[in-house]
Amino acid sequence: MSHTEAPRRTGLMSLEDALAQLLGAAQPLAGQESVATLEADGRVLAQDIRSGLDVPGFDNSSMDGYAVNSAEVAAAIAAGQALAVSQRIPAGHFGLVLQPGSVARIFTGAPLPAGADAVVMQEEAEPQADGSVRFQQAPAVGQFIRRRGEDMRQGDTVLPAGTRLGPAELGLAASLGLAALPVRPRVRVALFSTGDELVMPGEVAPEDMAPGAIYNSNRYFLSVLLRRLGCEVSDLGIVPDRREATLEALRAAAEAHDLIVTSGGVSVGEEDHVKPAVQQLGGLDLWQIAIKPGKPFAHGWIARSGQADPSDQTGDPGDAAGRCHFVGLPGNPVSSFVTFLLLVRPLLLRLQGISAGQGVQAQPGADGLPPGLALPAHFDWPRADRRREFLRARRNAAGGLDLFPNQSSGVLTSVAWCDGLVDLPAGRTVARGDSVNFISLAALLG
Amino acid sequence: MSHTEAPRRTGLMSLEDALAQLLGAAQPLAGQESVATLEADGRVLAQDIRSGLDVPGFDNSSMDGYAVNSAEVAAAIAAGQALAVSQRIPAGHFGLVLQPGSVARIFTGAPLPAGADAVVMQEEAEPQADGSVRFQQAPAVGQFIRRRGEDMRQGDTVLPAGTRLGPAELGLAASLGLAALPVRPRVRVALFSTGDELVMPGEVAPEDMAPGAIYNSNRYFLSVLLRRLGCEVSDLGIVPDRREATLEALRAAAEAHDLIVTSGGVSVGEEDHVKPAVQQLGGLDLWQIAIKPGKPFAHGWIARSGQADPSDQTGDPGDAAGRCHFVGLPGNPVSSFVTFLLLVRPLLLRLQGISAGQGVQAQPGADGLPPGLALPAHFDWPRADRRREFLRARRNAAGGLDLFPNQSSGVLTSVAWCDGLVDLPAGRTVARGDSVNFISLAALLG
Repeated sequence: MSHTEAPRRTGLMSLEDALAQLLGAAQPLAGQESVATLEADGRVLAQDIRSGLDVPGFDNSSMDGYAVNSAEVAAAIAAGQALAVSQRIPAGHFGLVLQPGSVARIFTGAPLPAGADAVVMQEEAEPQADGSVRFQQAPAVGQFIRRRGEDMRQGDTVLPAGTRLGPAELGLAASLGLAALPVRPRVRVALFSTGDELVMPGEVAPEDMAPGAIYNSNRYFLSVLLRRLGCEVSDLGIVPDRREATLEALRAAAEAHDLIVTSGGVSVGEEDHVKPAVQQLGGLDLWQIAIKPGKPFAHGWIARSGQADPSDQTGDPGDAAGRCHFVGLPGNPVSSFVTFLLLVRPLLLRLQGISAGQGVQAQPGADGLPPGLALPAHFDWPRADRRREFLRARRNAAGGLDLFPNQSSGVLTSVAWCDGLVDLPAGRTVARGDSVNFISLAALLG
Repeated sequence: MSHTEAPRRTGLMSLEDALAQLLGAAQPLAGQESVATLEADGRVLAQDIRSGLDVPGFDNSSMDGYAVNSAEVAAAIAAGQALAVSQRIPAGHFGLVLQPGSVARIFTGAPLPAGADAVVMQEEAEPQADGSVRFQQAPAVGQFIRRRGEDMRQGDTVLPAGTRLGPAELGLAASLGLAALPVRPRVRVALFSTGDELVMPGEVAPEDMAPGAIYNSNRYFLSVLLRRLGCEVSDLGIVPDRREATLEALRAAAEAHDLIVTSGGVSVGEEDHVKPAVQQLGGLDLWQIAIKPGKPFAHGWIARSGQADPSDQTGDPGDAAGRCHFVGLPGNPVSSFVTFLLLVRPLLLRLQGISAGQGVQAQPGADGLPPGLALPAHFDWPRADRRREFLRARRNAAGGLDLFPNQSSGVLTSVAWCDGLVDLPAGRTVARGDSVNFISLAALLG
């Protein structure tokens, strides 16, 4: 590669700036596929879904009771008479035209017979020994009737393209008769780990671990996080520790994936083969993001053709056409986890083309985060940091937030314990009782 | 079956009472299996997980910088001298004993060499042309050192039995070297639909739908909801419309499942074969729960041996040993969806033996719900209901709650639109600006 330059290094940059660059370089993946509605949980609609029918498809009863002509009921009450029950209409069955002077027994969801203009619920009717029925009060016209097209009209856009599909959306699509749905392709992610000290769980027993060795935990949670966000994950294991083999592994991964994620090897002082290899195969920025935990983050791209595009003057990372995105997370598990949620998650939402406002708390704000909650801190945080902090906390029974005692932990105890992150602006301390911004983990993981 | 009695019918009962009966009759499923840690997302630990090692396993640096003897640094500063860099310790490598009068270049996570008692971060050191390094300030002893066992000590219980496993828990287990985990069996759920009017999507095109026919949407969202909660789902389709075939289908399903879920056919007036069949094969209560949407709910059990246990005097529904639980949801999609979240979800958490406080918002309170949020209503709700209402709402950019306009909808538009439920006590109205209790859908779906 002739025009390889050193990775660009930044001073401390804000989360918003990092995110703007990251998302600015990313476009929703092209293409679509058809997936069975029952198997489309978590997928993203590639096209608007329009209703092919009116829902309900016919005027029907919203109660178990009697379909009546309201004026006839009023007349019967005035005359002190009962009305004959001339037919019985269960759900799924169409009745006959209502005979004058009679009512129809009807059940929830059953079509309203012609001639009826209201439903009286069964609790307000008095069946007589001879099979007729008495009423105390005439119903308002239209009572307990669900009108044809009341919920949806034929041609209405019911779910717009970019909707992330969950149980309600899939049920809604099914109610329109759709057994399959057009969805965006899954994001294909290649996951690499780097670090000489890493040992895979199961390969060496705890008592036999060499001095200095640690188990690779990042591989595990990153793989699960990626799958929860709908990605197709290839776990490619540890990056080879030779330059040529690293180049070859990255080149091959870039051909078959939309995004390569590594963890470890992104700090300034760290040595690895990944950074120069990515640089050689495409481009790379090393960011220092003003967040804690977090900070080091590598962002780049690898040309799919196997070489960098010489016409590209911007140095901007990957796009859908000829590039594979590259993201390098810090090696520290807590930093890696949090940085994933703050930066990789919004990138994945963008690559999937997820649009806002679908009742899933999926769509990031300007800082990539779902809307937070103002909750009272039931802790003190007396030492301000110059970086924006994301403290591991959880809601307690008193409606406040408790803090995990060890916020500097290198292991994931704090993340497993917490149910959200306190998003603390740079330079800010917290006194017990202060209102802080809390971001639920449930909203970040879905 | 000789001692078949009619299903017991209740007056309006509270959600809390219904839940207490439902959970009182349910025990966590027995047994356990071993699952690869990478594949254990959403599973529930069957045993406590104890650490087999200290984490970190050795004193190590939390910064890129220099491992030093603090007193020697102080002496060198006083003498205006630089200190030699006598070794270089990357992560994964053990250094030698620190030579007196020297420091070691060290990287994040690398073991602290014997003789060093602090780390100076690289930003605060001045490398000299001859390879030595100068310092401005002596570090406090222990600075930037992560001590052996600081996060976990060998023998500590790190994750208790009953923990639902998510990305952080799986990463934590991996950091202990665990490639497989002992988990509770999945809950095996058989899903039936009932209703003559139901048509499966894909079988009939919208324009060819018979009058009165509607698409079966409940099957779709129930299947997805069950799978999201970790169940193994058998979709057994429409219940046969003959009595003997219904008995046989339920009997066979009970043998191979822990829970049978049906939707439709639970209203008092509705006709179906399921209620008498469940009654004949075990026991059944028909509840009228004081919630809206919701209300009708069937709760029962089917004896696994194929006949009811004659020694049972309580009439209480299923237990783990010889009974399959039975739940009948209302047929209206919105009622079915909401009732699932309010009643079936807590039952499934109980059957999985999920315990509280694991940083997953999974554990129900006394009413089966995850903790709610007090948020301002940006809507009016002038008409009180005698039932507790669960209104479909979503948070808006102004921090308040908007309401879906059609709360009586028979289709799932409101559920797809919302991102949570306003939990409104019986008899209560809402004026714009009132604080209401909001339960996030993200917390309910995970």
